[in-house]
Amino acid sequence: LTANAAIAQQADPLPSWNDGASKSAIIAFVESVTTEGSAGFVRPAERIAVFDNDGTLWAEQPVYFQGLFAIDRIKKLAPEHPEWETTEPYKSAIAGDMKGLMATGKEGLLKVIAASHANITADKFAASVREWLRTARHPQTGKPYAQMVYRPMRELLDYLRSKGFKTFIVSGGGIDFMRVFAERVYGVPPEQVIGSTIDAEFEMRDGVPTILKTGKLVLVDDNVGKPVGIYRHIGRRPIFAAGNSDGDLQMLQYTTIPRSADDKAPSFGLIVHHTDADREWAYDRDSHIGKLDKALDEAPQRGWTVVDMKADWKTVFAQ
Amino acid sequence: LTANAAIAQQADPLPSWNDGASKSAIIAFVESVTTEGSAGFVRPAERIAVFDNDGTLWAEQPVYFQGLFAIDRIKKLAPEHPEWETTEPYKSAIAGDMKGLMATGKEGLLKVIAASHANITADKFAASVREWLRTARHPQTGKPYAQMVYRPMRELLDYLRSKGFKTFIVSGGGIDFMRVFAERVYGVPPEQVIGSTIDAEFEMRDGVPTILKTGKLVLVDDNVGKPVGIYRHIGRRPIFAAGNSDGDLQMLQYTTIPRSADDKAPSFGLIVHHTDADREWAYDRDSHIGKLDKALDEAPQRGWTVVDMKADWKTVFAQ
Ligand SMILES: [Ca+2]
Ligand SMILES: [Ca+2]
Repeated sequence: LTANAAIAQQADPLPSWNDGASKSAIIAFVESVTTEGSAGFVRPAERIAVFDNDGTLWAEQPVYFQGLFAIDRIKKLAPEHPEWETTEPYKSAIAGDMKGLMATGKEGLLKVIAASHANITADKFAASVREWLRTARHPQTGKPYAQMVYRPMRELLDYLRSKGFKTFIVSGGGIDFMRVFAERVYGVPPEQVIGSTIDAEFEMRDGVPTILKTGKLVLVDDNVGKPVGIYRHIGRRPIFAAGNSDGDLQMLQYTTIPRSADDKAPSFGLIVHHTDADREWAYDRDSHIGKLDKALDEAPQRGWTVVDMKADWKTVFAQ
Repeated sequence: LTANAAIAQQADPLPSWNDGASKSAIIAFVESVTTEGSAGFVRPAERIAVFDNDGTLWAEQPVYFQGLFAIDRIKKLAPEHPEWETTEPYKSAIAGDMKGLMATGKEGLLKVIAASHANITADKFAASVREWLRTARHPQTGKPYAQMVYRPMRELLDYLRSKGFKTFIVSGGGIDFMRVFAERVYGVPPEQVIGSTIDAEFEMRDGVPTILKTGKLVLVDDNVGKPVGIYRHIGRRPIFAAGNSDGDLQMLQYTTIPRSADDKAPSFGLIVHHTDADREWAYDRDSHIGKLDKALDEAPQRGWTVVDMKADWKTVFAQ
C-alpha cells in the first residue's frame, strides 16, 4: 500500500450516507468478503454486484425516464408521420396525454417502443439518446436527467469497485438506452449493462458494417427475467444485489437464497425504500411506478437491508 | 514499474510464435494502441478483443467438440429413452454414425441440441459438461479436450490482457457449454463468453432459486450473428478480432472496416489458417468444418493477418 491508498482506505467510503444500520451492514459485508483469511472471503473474480437502475440508481417519477424519452422521440418524428395525429398510441404521446397513453395498454406500449427504439441503426439510436440527455429536462425538477442520479448509490458503486467488485446494471429498462450514459454517469461500461433487449441485425450498408435495431423483444429484463438476464450475460451468481421494487424480487432471491443446506456463500440484498417526499418522492405498496410490496414483506425473513432514503441518505442527488 | 515487471516486459510475450510477419504485426499493433502519446493510442476501456473458439482457440476436427459432447450425452441418457433406439437422430447418435446424423439435417441437429442441452437446470447442465471434460478423450489424439487448446493463442490472450485488453470469446458454440471451462482454460471469465444461446427460465423450486434451460434458440452466434452477439453483450466495437473460418467474416468486418472516411480507429483482424497436417490438421476452402474461403479472399484487401499455423507456431498444443 502507498501512503495515499492507506489514507483513502481509512476515509469514509460512503460520505453521503448517515451512520446507521444500513451503512454499517454494507461496510461490514464488503470488509468481510474482501479480507483475506476471513471466513467469508470471496475471490475477486466472484465479486459480482448487480444494480437495478430506475428508482435504484436514478429517479423514476412521475414516469420512467425512458418513457419520457420515447414520447419526446415520437413528438420529434411526428412531422414525418402525419397519420399519427389521429392514431393511438401516437396521438396521446404527441399530446403528452399520459392517461390516454396508459389506456392503450401493452399493445400501445409495444408500438411506442417500436416507433422510438426500432427500425433505426444502433449508431443513430445512440445519437438520439445522447441528444435527448443533453437537452431534455425533468418535468418537475427542471434538471437534466443525468443529474437525477442518487449520489449515495454512485458512492456505493465506486466503493464496491475500489474493493475489487465488478458492478453490473440489471434493469427492466432498455439495454441500448442505458449504455449511452452508464459509463459516464455510473462508471459502468456498456458490457456490464443488462436490460430489456430488442433484437438486432447486421448488414453491410454501402460497404459500412451496420447494426440495425429491429422490433422483436428478446429479453424482458424484469421480475423473473432478471435472473435470466444475469444468467445469459454474466453466467454466475452475484454476491450483491440492489433494487427498489417487486421487479427486483427474483434478482434478490437469486443472489441471496442458499442453493442447499451446505451453501454458506456470503451475499447481500439491498432495497432502496423511497421514503422522502421532501427531497425526492415517497411511495411503495400502491405506486403505479416502482411498486414495492412483496419484496418489502420478504426483506426481514431474507435479511435484506432496507435503505430508508430519508433517514439513511445525507444527500439524495448528485450535483 | 518493479524490477520484475520490467524484466517481464522485455521478455518475449509470445514465446510459442516463430519470428515473422504475423508475430511482428501483432506486437506492433499492441505496442501502438497501448503507448500513450502514440497516434493510435486507445484508452484501456476500449481495448476490446474478440476471439472465435472452435478452430481458433482449440481444435475442431474431426467434428466440433461440442457435437461430440452432445453425442456422448445422448448415449448416456439413452437408457431412460428406449424409443431413441429406433428414432432419428438419436439412433445415429447412439450408434456414433456421424454420416447418418448429418443426414438428419437442421431438424435433427435441433433435436440433438434439445436432448443434450435443454430441459435441464443450468447447474446440472454445467455439471454434465464438467464431468465430460474430465473423462472424455479425443477420438484421434486420445487427449482430454482441454489439452487441445492452442498454446500460441493462449499466449496471445495473456499478452493482450497484460496490456490492458479485455478478452472475449465470440463463438458459434454454446455459451453455457464454453463458460464451464473458459475461465480455467483461457482465463476468460463467464461474463466475457458470448455464444449461441438457448433461452432460460427462472423459478423457485422447493424454495431454491433455479435456472432451467429451455430449448428455444435466442441467438445463433455465427456469421451475421457474431456482430449481433457483440452488440448485445459488449455494446461497443472491438479493436481486435481473431477467427478461422467464414463464420468469422462478419465479426472481422465489424471490427476492422472504417465507418466513414474520417474513421481512423486502429484495429486488427487475425485469421488462423490450418496449414499443419502433421501437428494438427490442414483444411480451408473445402472443409465441412471450419470452411475458410470468402474470409481468406478478403484478407489481403482488408489487411487482416493470416496466421500460417505450420510456419508461425513453434508449438501447437498446450501441454
Ligand atoms: Ca426499479
Ligand atoms: Ca471457428
